[in-house]
Amino acid sequence: MLEELKKSVLEANLALVEHQLVIFTWGNVSGIDREKGLVVIKPSGVEYDELTEDKLVVLDLEGNIVEGNLRPSSDTPTHLVLYKNFPEIGGVVHTHSSWATAWAQAGRGIPPMGTTHGDYFYGEIPCTRKMTASEIQGEYEKETGNVIVETFKGLDPMQIPGVLVHSHGPFSWGKDPMNAVHNAVVMEEVAKMTFRTLVLSPDKGRMDQVLLDKHFLRKHGKNAYYGQN
Amino acid sequence: MLEELKKSVLEANLALVEHQLVIFTWGNVSGIDREKGLVVIKPSGVEYDELTEDKLVVLDLEGNIVEGNLRPSSDTPTHLVLYKNFPEIGGVVHTHSSWATAWAQAGRGIPPMGTTHGDYFYGEIPCTRKMTASEIQGEYEKETGNVIVETFKGLDPMQIPGVLVHSHGPFSWGKDPMNAVHNAVVMEEVAKMTFRTLVLSPDKGRMDQVLLDKHFLRKHGKNAYYGQN
Amino acid sequence: MLEELKKSVLEANLALVEHQLVIFTWGNVSGIDREKGLVVIKPSGVEYDELTEDKLVVLDLEGNIVEGNLRPSSDTPTHLVLYKNFPEIGGVVHTHSSWATAWAQAGRGIPPMGTTHGDYFYGEIPCTRKMTASEIQGEYEKETGNVIVETFKGLDPMQIPGVLVHSHGPFSWGKDPMNAVHNAVVMEEVAKMTFRTLVLSPDKGRMDQVLLDKHFLRKHGKNAYYGQN
Amino acid sequence: MLEELKKSVLEANLALVEHQLVIFTWGNVSGIDREKGLVVIKPSGVEYDELTEDKLVVLDLEGNIVEGNLRPSSDTPTHLVLYKNFPEIGGVVHTHSSWATAWAQAGRGIPPMGTTHGDYFYGEIPCTRKMTASEIQGEYEKETGNVIVETFKGLDPMQIPGVLVHSHGPFSWGKDPMNAVHNAVVMEEVAKMTFRTLVLSPDKGRMDQVLLDKHFLRKHGKNAYYGQN
Repeated sequence: MLEELKKSVLEANLALVEHQLVIFTWGNVSGIDREKGLVVIKPSGVEYDELTEDKLVVLDLEGNIVEGNLRPSSDTPTHLVLYKNFPEIGGVVHTHSSWATAWAQAGRGIPPMGTTHGDYFYGEIPCTRKMTASEIQGEYEKETGNVIVETFKGLDPMQIPGVLVHSHGPFSWGKDPMNAVHNAVVMEEVAKMTFRTLVLSPDKGRMDQVLLDKHFLRKHGKNAYYGQN
Repeated sequence: MLEELKKSVLEANLALVEHQLVIFTWGNVSGIDREKGLVVIKPSGVEYDELTEDKLVVLDLEGNIVEGNLRPSSDTPTHLVLYKNFPEIGGVVHTHSSWATAWAQAGRGIPPMGTTHGDYFYGEIPCTRKMTASEIQGEYEKETGNVIVETFKGLDPMQIPGVLVHSHGPFSWGKDPMNAVHNAVVMEEVAKMTFRTLVLSPDKGRMDQVLLDKHFLRKHGKNAYYGQN
Repeated sequence: MLEELKKSVLEANLALVEHQLVIFTWGNVSGIDREKGLVVIKPSGVEYDELTEDKLVVLDLEGNIVEGNLRPSSDTPTHLVLYKNFPEIGGVVHTHSSWATAWAQAGRGIPPMGTTHGDYFYGEIPCTRKMTASEIQGEYEKETGNVIVETFKGLDPMQIPGVLVHSHGPFSWGKDPMNAVHNAVVMEEVAKMTFRTLVLSPDKGRMDQVLLDKHFLRKHGKNAYYGQN
Repeated sequence: MLEELKKSVLEANLALVEHQLVIFTWGNVSGIDREKGLVVIKPSGVEYDELTEDKLVVLDLEGNIVEGNLRPSSDTPTHLVLYKNFPEIGGVVHTHSSWATAWAQAGRGIPPMGTTHGDYFYGEIPCTRKMTASEIQGEYEKETGNVIVETFKGLDPMQIPGVLVHSHGPFSWGKDPMNAVHNAVVMEEVAKMTFRTLVLSPDKGRMDQVLLDKHFLRKHGKNAYYGQN
């Protein structure tokens, strides 16, 4: 069941290691079959080099396990909230990649300062507010999803496919699991570049909006002309 | 004798290289058999790629060599003090990993600023006071252990499994040698992330205590729910 | 047709990956046959590990495709402007390498502060002005070339074989495609070193002109005595 | 002739690449046979992966080529001055390794701030003064050696086996070529650590002299007790 999705979720999880976004078990990728309403996700605390398709866990959107012998990632409720609220996304990634996590720990969104950013993120990559004590002590992982959704009020998650959770780290998403990993790699790269930009020019403002428009839209708009499609 | 322990001490020493925590001979791992009261440790100044089980040195807790033809690590007296004073630990690691050493050289503890930290260290990773001239000129390596123990007055070494020795570098520990290495890797990663956090937001305070509680206890508390156990 | 040039353009594109100047498809190299007036360039959005000689695109200097089934790099008009205005160059490189891009995002040229810089770049690596809205909304990639050419008024592109495009990233060039890559690697290295220099000594001025003269000219002047030629 | 020395000079040159201290041809190692008064050095501008023993150049201390078909490293006169003035050294290394070069460009010596430094360098790694116009325009590479020797007035080059040349980069030395490379690696590591230390604590002074004494002398003094000798 869901063999193709499982394959892509496995590959996307392993790609986190190849792109050096995770060490140990610090990250997870999921993917969704929108027709069946089922999510495939990495099991909790399993090393990447021991990960196989049959260890992946299948759940419905309410978190009921439909297939799999292992406990799903402890971050599963966050993934499910994102799938429910962002209907166009097909994959979700969470890591503690070190540059993006530094911004999350600093409680700062990553401002758009160059075309690398603008090619993928159509504006600031926002940082959530701090979570409240009752959110943390309650259904913490679900509330993590809720605070992300709250942060995206008025934003299009397909135009800004990632977020920093305050004092925690990055989540990203995309049209499928591997695309979500792609966006995680870009976010880490942009977090690194923009950190260095601000050391060089602490008061440098955002890039011009017209340049951001140009770069995002030449790749993602109706009249996109980047690539072969 | 102690074949299993020797194997795990060898593997843990080699893992330091794999995780890029050491160059040349700058590091050592030991492990203890609590029942027999014997410690296995890396010999002094031996390259990692020449390290084999039969080169490891076995000592009792007073530092008497029980087995082995080579001189033990010059840091052995530090390890022994830690084993005597922290009865729950099963492995000790010392490195000069570069991010953690930068904090040690700065004489600053690493404050908890995010969940990566909170997943492993239940509070600040402390930095010892400077050692006195008489401590340095006396039994230096033993006194290094003593100043670590002094730093942990009122702290639980199983909840904060690492320390920075002022003007020197990190020591970490764990339930066994590989777990001590794991904690060394985490400390290095947290040292890197938090350095960058403070460059981005120099006045950012610690993470909220409630979030630190949540993350440490979901992995390590009685009601832990991370992983498969 | 142009088999030798295609080979060198392919090798130069792959060298970007080896030197870790690009991830995904973030970069491109072209080369020119000056006699025939034809340019060979990477196709747009094609992964480096799928790149072969027959996927390269051949264009004339007006941008007409002479050979190839794929769409050329979206940055092609920038390359063409450079070839038309800098008649001595034989190869052009564009990347988003992270240190150089940080300077470009900061809107700062890289001042010459040491002999590594002086061995290759005979003065500051300049940063262009910001582009205007009409340039960005018009023939953007062509105007990118124009703003580079404007920046080099009074400069010799063979003595300063690279530039930072404001809010974007580096372009470099050389006598052939691989030499242009070589200069891209040097620019990235110099961007890294000089960033760190300025953190250590924010008010440190440029290197002495006499030292810059010495180093550039011992490698590139009439009386050069570096290497075997 | 000098087969053993050539072998060790070749290995030491290749070790520069393994330790990632050089890219392209940016570095060179030499070794000396003190009895014969002959120096073996890398040829100028030759790529490391094409370097073989028969390409090495043999010179006497006056710079006369005794064996070899290639031009020696352009930095040869610097090496020769060091061999003549520092009679205990057996190998010399020059690189543009990026952390040490950042300090050299900043015109700052690296202060001793921790035991990693103290294990190898018994005090600050000094930075030379700027060279004068007449030194630069005269016998530049020889004068580079002279300014290093001037910097070591009152210092023991065997206790501080390296230097930063202002606006240029590091030179290091040791009892033989590989030991000189070892010291180059340590200098780069210390340059990195201490840079980060100063970002964390800009006003942090040097480490205590008593700790520096302890660490240098436990490895290098008469009563050294580190390692197996």
